Amino acid sequence: MRIAADASPPRIHAISYDPDRLEEREIEDVETLASYREMSGVLWVDVSGFGSEPTLRRIGEIFGVHTLAMADVVNVPQRPKVEDYEDRHLIVTQMARLREHRSVELEQLSLILGPRWVLTFQERPGDVFEPIRQRIRAGVGSIRRAGPDYLAYALLSAIVDGYFPVVEALGEEIDRLEEEVMERPTPSTLHQIHEIRRMLISLHRIQWRQRDALSSLLHEEPSPFTATVRVYLRDVYDHSVQLLDVIETSRDLVVGLMDIYLSTISNRMNEVMKTLTIITSIFIPLTLLAGIYGMNFEYMPELHWRWAYHAVWGAMIVIAAGLVIWFRTRGWIGRGDIRSPTDRGR
Amino acid sequence: MRIAADASPPRIHAISYDPDRLEEREIEDVETLASYREMSGVLWVDVSGFGSEPTLRRIGEIFGVHTLAMADVVNVPQRPKVEDYEDRHLIVTQMARLREHRSVELEQLSLILGPRWVLTFQERPGDVFEPIRQRIRAGVGSIRRAGPDYLAYALLSAIVDGYFPVVEALGEEIDRLEEEVMERPTPSTLHQIHEIRRMLISLHRIQWRQRDALSSLLHEEPSPFTATVRVYLRDVYDHSVQLLDVIETSRDLVVGLMDIYLSTISNRMNEVMKTLTIITSIFIPLTLLAGIYGMNFEYMPELHWRWAYHAVWGAMIVIAAGLVIWFRTRGWIGRGDIRSPTDRGR
Amino acid sequence: MRIAADASPPRIHAISYDPDRLEEREIEDVETLASYREMSGVLWVDVSGFGSEPTLRRIGEIFGVHTLAMADVVNVPQRPKVEDYEDRHLIVTQMARLREHRSVELEQLSLILGPRWVLTFQERPGDVFEPIRQRIRAGVGSIRRAGPDYLAYALLSAIVDGYFPVVEALGEEIDRLEEEVMERPTPSTLHQIHEIRRMLISLHRIQWRQRDALSSLLHEEPSPFTATVRVYLRDVYDHSVQLLDVIETSRDLVVGLMDIYLSTISNRMNEVMKTLTIITSIFIPLTLLAGIYGMNFEYMPELHWRWAYHAVWGAMIVIAAGLVIWFRTRGWIGRGDIRSPTDRGR
Amino acid sequence: MRIAADASPPRIHAISYDPDRLEEREIEDVETLASYREMSGVLWVDVSGFGSEPTLRRIGEIFGVHTLAMADVVNVPQRPKVEDYEDRHLIVTQMARLREHRSVELEQLSLILGPRWVLTFQERPGDVFEPIRQRIRAGVGSIRRAGPDYLAYALLSAIVDGYFPVVEALGEEIDRLEEEVMERPTPSTLHQIHEIRRMLISLHRIQWRQRDALSSLLHEEPSPFTATVRVYLRDVYDHSVQLLDVIETSRDLVVGLMDIYLSTISNRMNEVMKTLTIITSIFIPLTLLAGIYGMNFEYMPELHWRWAYHAVWGAMIVIAAGLVIWFRTRGWIGRGDIRSPTDRGR
Amino acid sequence: MRIAADASPPRIHAISYDPDRLEEREIEDVETLASYREMSGVLWVDVSGFGSEPTLRRIGEIFGVHTLAMADVVNVPQRPKVEDYEDRHLIVTQMARLREHRSVELEQLSLILGPRWVLTFQERPGDVFEPIRQRIRAGVGSIRRAGPDYLAYALLSAIVDGYFPVVEALGEEIDRLEEEVMERPTPSTLHQIHEIRRMLISLHRIQWRQRDALSSLLHEEPSPFTATVRVYLRDVYDHSVQLLDVIETSRDLVVGLMDIYLSTISNRMNEVMKTLTIITSIFIPLTLLAGIYGMNFEYMPELHWRWAYHAVWGAMIVIAAGLVIWFRTRGWIGRGDIRSPTDRGR
Repeated sequence: MRIAADASPPRIHAISYDPDRLEEREIEDVETLASYREMSGVLWVDVSGFGSEPTLRRIGEIFGVHTLAMADVVNVPQRPKVEDYEDRHLIVTQMARLREHRSVELEQLSLILGPRWVLTFQERPGDVFEPIRQRIRAGVGSIRRAGPDYLAYALLSAIVDGYFPVVEALGEEIDRLEEEVMERPTPSTLHQIHEIRRMLISLHRIQWRQRDALSSLLHEEPSPFTATVRVYLRDVYDHSVQLLDVIETSRDLVVGLMDIYLSTISNRMNEVMKTLTIITSIFIPLTLLAGIYGMNFEYMPELHWRWAYHAVWGAMIVIAAGLVIWFRTRGWIGRGDIRSPTDRGR
Repeated sequence: MRIAADASPPRIHAISYDPDRLEEREIEDVETLASYREMSGVLWVDVSGFGSEPTLRRIGEIFGVHTLAMADVVNVPQRPKVEDYEDRHLIVTQMARLREHRSVELEQLSLILGPRWVLTFQERPGDVFEPIRQRIRAGVGSIRRAGPDYLAYALLSAIVDGYFPVVEALGEEIDRLEEEVMERPTPSTLHQIHEIRRMLISLHRIQWRQRDALSSLLHEEPSPFTATVRVYLRDVYDHSVQLLDVIETSRDLVVGLMDIYLSTISNRMNEVMKTLTIITSIFIPLTLLAGIYGMNFEYMPELHWRWAYHAVWGAMIVIAAGLVIWFRTRGWIGRGDIRSPTDRGR
Repeated sequence: MRIAADASPPRIHAISYDPDRLEEREIEDVETLASYREMSGVLWVDVSGFGSEPTLRRIGEIFGVHTLAMADVVNVPQRPKVEDYEDRHLIVTQMARLREHRSVELEQLSLILGPRWVLTFQERPGDVFEPIRQRIRAGVGSIRRAGPDYLAYALLSAIVDGYFPVVEALGEEIDRLEEEVMERPTPSTLHQIHEIRRMLISLHRIQWRQRDALSSLLHEEPSPFTATVRVYLRDVYDHSVQLLDVIETSRDLVVGLMDIYLSTISNRMNEVMKTLTIITSIFIPLTLLAGIYGMNFEYMPELHWRWAYHAVWGAMIVIAAGLVIWFRTRGWIGRGDIRSPTDRGR
Repeated sequence: MRIAADASPPRIHAISYDPDRLEEREIEDVETLASYREMSGVLWVDVSGFGSEPTLRRIGEIFGVHTLAMADVVNVPQRPKVEDYEDRHLIVTQMARLREHRSVELEQLSLILGPRWVLTFQERPGDVFEPIRQRIRAGVGSIRRAGPDYLAYALLSAIVDGYFPVVEALGEEIDRLEEEVMERPTPSTLHQIHEIRRMLISLHRIQWRQRDALSSLLHEEPSPFTATVRVYLRDVYDHSVQLLDVIETSRDLVVGLMDIYLSTISNRMNEVMKTLTIITSIFIPLTLLAGIYGMNFEYMPELHWRWAYHAVWGAMIVIAAGLVIWFRTRGWIGRGDIRSPTDRGR
Repeated sequence: MRIAADASPPRIHAISYDPDRLEEREIEDVETLASYREMSGVLWVDVSGFGSEPTLRRIGEIFGVHTLAMADVVNVPQRPKVEDYEDRHLIVTQMARLREHRSVELEQLSLILGPRWVLTFQERPGDVFEPIRQRIRAGVGSIRRAGPDYLAYALLSAIVDGYFPVVEALGEEIDRLEEEVMERPTPSTLHQIHEIRRMLISLHRIQWRQRDALSSLLHEEPSPFTATVRVYLRDVYDHSVQLLDVIETSRDLVVGLMDIYLSTISNRMNEVMKTLTIITSIFIPLTLLAGIYGMNFEYMPELHWRWAYHAVWGAMIVIAAGLVIWFRTRGWIGRGDIRSPTDRGR
């Protein structure tokens, strides 16, 4: 689920905007950031890839970020948290993205909210922020008119909402496994259940911390967020709580799946054992009968009776039929013995 | 359990009343609502179906509802919660109704309590509010004389009490499954236990949130509810806690059912294995005996004894009887071996 | 456990007393209660049976009880709780009584503590208050000199202490089941474990709420109880906590019983399987040997050896003995194979 | 674990001391205690055995103890708690002592701390206080110079520390069971695991309450303990928390043992089933072969071939060897089939 | 995991430093410490080995440490905690170090922070502090310029970070066990799972207490730590929380492993039983057929038919083939019956 951070040199992307102006550039020389910092309006610097530590450290220096904060940015993975270094606020989050084959990619996204700028650090290029960039470029909505706190809100909102497709995919997977476990459980099913359980444990812990971080962000006093943006932030917090709900429900369901797996396996073994017992019980007495008349005693009067052979056949059929009827009354033979045992559950 | 929201255009139903006056109408043109809003007395606008988003947004605008609140109304399902936008209070709840075949239908009911009006939004027509409409029309009780907070209370009360038939039906289902699991467990039983467990997990989470929402509504300061109505609201809260109790008890019982299922399956396998072992143990030695006297050695003195054949029959009967007695002393053969194994538990 | 409330007309029993005076009467006409209310001293009105709702409602009116309080009294079962309507205090509790055959009868007992009187409502005649009535009649102890709060305390104390014989009976039942599950587990044992678990879940939830209610009664400010009576009430609270402890311990033990049940069943199946395997393993090779010398080939030199038949017998005995020794070294045959498997655990 | 309280008449032991004086006596006549109470210095009265209730009640009266407090002293077992009756403090604890055969004896020890005296009530003679008596007699340490609060601390400390040998013995027992469950699980192991679990549940609940009682003693305001003694009391609290830690760890380990027990039993059954399957699979085809050439058809050309008999023997050996090789490739036959199955885990 | 404390005489190592001066010495005579205490700058005295109690007690006296604090230092193991004796602060922690063969060594490290000095007591030589000593000697970083609180922070940080390699090693072990449990579970796997579970329970409890201790250190008022150092201490606290997260996740995974173990064992038994049932079901009817024509009746017309013998062979082949096909349609014979059952899960 977690891939090592990108070791290539950091790609630095800066967007500086105010209601009337937009400047967007890929930064090659980290020192030019100092001039960006002086521009009016809001500055968003997005750094992808942790290949060059000196560069990262230099960015921290330019924006006056505490070294402990920068250490948390670079040493991944950290648990989601909010830390407050006077007028710089470090928000560590984990960004989740759904990849092909239902795999999930987790990546640490550290956000530093300063007086007039937002720094974001991600482990590798590729994120859930594209719609926000579009909105800034197009100037739709209030984002261009609002301050850096609104930008931080928008980014956090994108991160939290990015989990929904992930948990929905997991939910569908659980539904599929539920059907599989009821109808054709194999060791591979077990493996998949464990995999999904493992992923839910991770997601739950991350989301739990994320919710705590958002809550402390919401109740911090004094807050870096204006009252208006706080109303929006409450919405992000809400989504985070809802995510936790979905994850916990999924986790409870997966625990139930394990129980059903074991029960279904036991059920099947029961069917197998019944089959064995029925066949053994029917044929072994008949074999004994055949064995008796295969003995070589000199004086065995039945051997000379004319109808004896047919009588033995008859006895065998009667015994077999009797046993079948007996098993039927015990409920061991029924519909389920002719159709596959898994069909019975339908 | 959850069906997609009704995509047909919203049906808007408005009731405006004061102690002396009642006006009730289906609204075709959403703009007429503005005039309703100006009427004296209490206004209740009920919107069913989310087919036309612009209409819904327009209703929000007419009543001055925050866009975030309207987003929560429209994007279903939301977790139950209370949000407070100055003098508008958004209360999101989930309404449960029992359908035929013991299935449960869940539907989001968002209630916005304004200064002199109540808006309710439901996903589709059909609700638990009919008795309230009757009471308003008939003017019985205090509802016509009371304010919009009393109306909100009455609606919330109807929603919470609407869960009782649902959990009672689940309780009866659990009792039925309990009997089934003890007496004739099948894979289908397992399936039903899982289904009911799944439903209880959902209901528990919803009701948990609902209780939290009611609690925060009760302790909000300043409150949109008058002291008199708060006493009634405490009663709704109480019912919600009681619901949670019933749901948790049911959940504990269902977990117990899984354990019993597994134990019963194990018990049955034990019976099957005993049968196999008894039959095998009795017939295999006899078959060996028959096999021995079926050998073709030239010098086998017994073969020529006159009474040998009958002696072998006698020996067989003695061996079989001895084994039966031995199994009986071990407690493997008893009442339960003649009657069906499931009868033993009676 | 819960029986429907008595539908016969309510039996009303009134006791009015002060240190010097005692008047006790069965009330036929509910209106006479108004005069009782005017008497000096303490009045205790006990109502059994909910057959006539108008009568109950009229009693509520006479004593000025809020309609919501009366609704909680009549709509059983309610969870135990304390509600405070100005100078009337509603205390809802569940009264438990042990019946024959270790069954438990639960009954809602609602107590309304007013300025100079106590009302009690029970679902049907028969309660745990007889000793209190005796003490009032005899005038022993301080009850005749004390106020209505002391009477309320005495009633609550009797209710809480009435649970102790119930949980003790359950404890003895658990001990008995523990022995049964270790030594002769049957499907019926499973059934009984589930029954007791079910009862403990109910009792736990009731007692939990009861403790909460007592705690809020203890810490209410201003309190309807004088400081002296509060010391006694703390004792009732204490007993309630102790009850919870006993119930929780019992619940933990019952969960353990289920585990032991499953393990014991598995142990037994193991014994059965070993028996089957031993018998099959010993006799099948011998049967093969007999089968070989039962073949009809023309050229089988052994058949004509004089001592061959006896040699085969010898070989059979050697093979059987060798297998028995082998199984013994594997620990499959031992004491436990001769005595019943359950004896081994002793 | 719990034995009924001693019914013989109470043994009363009084020690009155100050830095310079020590008087120690067995009290025969309870009334003489009144004169002891008047002595200067600290008085410790220790009462063992609850045989005569009037004597106990009289002691309570002499020292001015509330009747509710005396009721808690006499009605055993009570949960550990602290109750505060103005300047008398009742501390109820449970004293544990290890007896021979690793059994644990629990006994209620109620301590009443008064202005200048300490009363202790134990169910029967024999306690963990002997070292404290020695220290008082010898006058070592600060105990003779300190007040009654220090004496109370010393007694509580002895009680809490008296649990450590008990939980250590349980810990060793768990280690022993762990080995047993891995290597030679028997039904008796199951029984012992349940016993130890039962004891841990009891100890946990007692220690939990004890810790709560100590905590409330520590934070009571105003406190009967001087600041200096409170530092020591914090140490007792600390030991109590540590005890809880050890008990909880043990409890977690015991739950794990049950899981291992079940798994080991399943493993063993697997071995048994494999043995059965291997033996059956090898011999049944050979028996069929022998059976075929035991048929009595007139025209069976093989019967007359000279080398046929030896060919059948050869075929049998080839079939058996082939099956053994097949089972070996499936991993069913290996080291573990020759050595005992339990050896494999080493 | 825990080894007895070193009984050899304590090795005392003192480092006294200020920005300009460094004095480092092994102390032979404990009395010389008094002079060290008088030096300017920061003093760190590290004591390894608890062999001589009088020496330890003397060190405590020289630095004015409370006897209760010294008792906690010497009586190992104590739970991690912080205690505050006026201007001396006792911090008890457990230091973990990874040893060869993935075993973990735990050792109590007690730290006493005084006005201008830090005392550390460890059970035996060997610790995680070497990098700190190097930094002091080299004078890199701010450690030489900072006070004793910074030194205490650095030591705590080293202790907490020392757990990371330990939990990472456990994580790798869990991954390995996960693969083993899916593909080739043996009783030894069970043993290893239990071992790792046991270790996680211990680590969790230690880390839980460690986190609590750090939290109370962080929020203590007045604090022995300056505001600057508190920022760093928050980082240590953070790492401790992260450790707890990792340990809890591991614990959840290990619980899942036990479930998978049981399920895999059940799966395998199912395969074994199917094999047995298939083989028995195919050969037993054929054996009966052979037995029938091995009977010695005089009048058995089939015996004299010329093609009868071949017909029986044909019938046998048809019956066997029919049964194989039947089992195939039930899904009992498939890929998994030819390859090893564990391969199916791949």
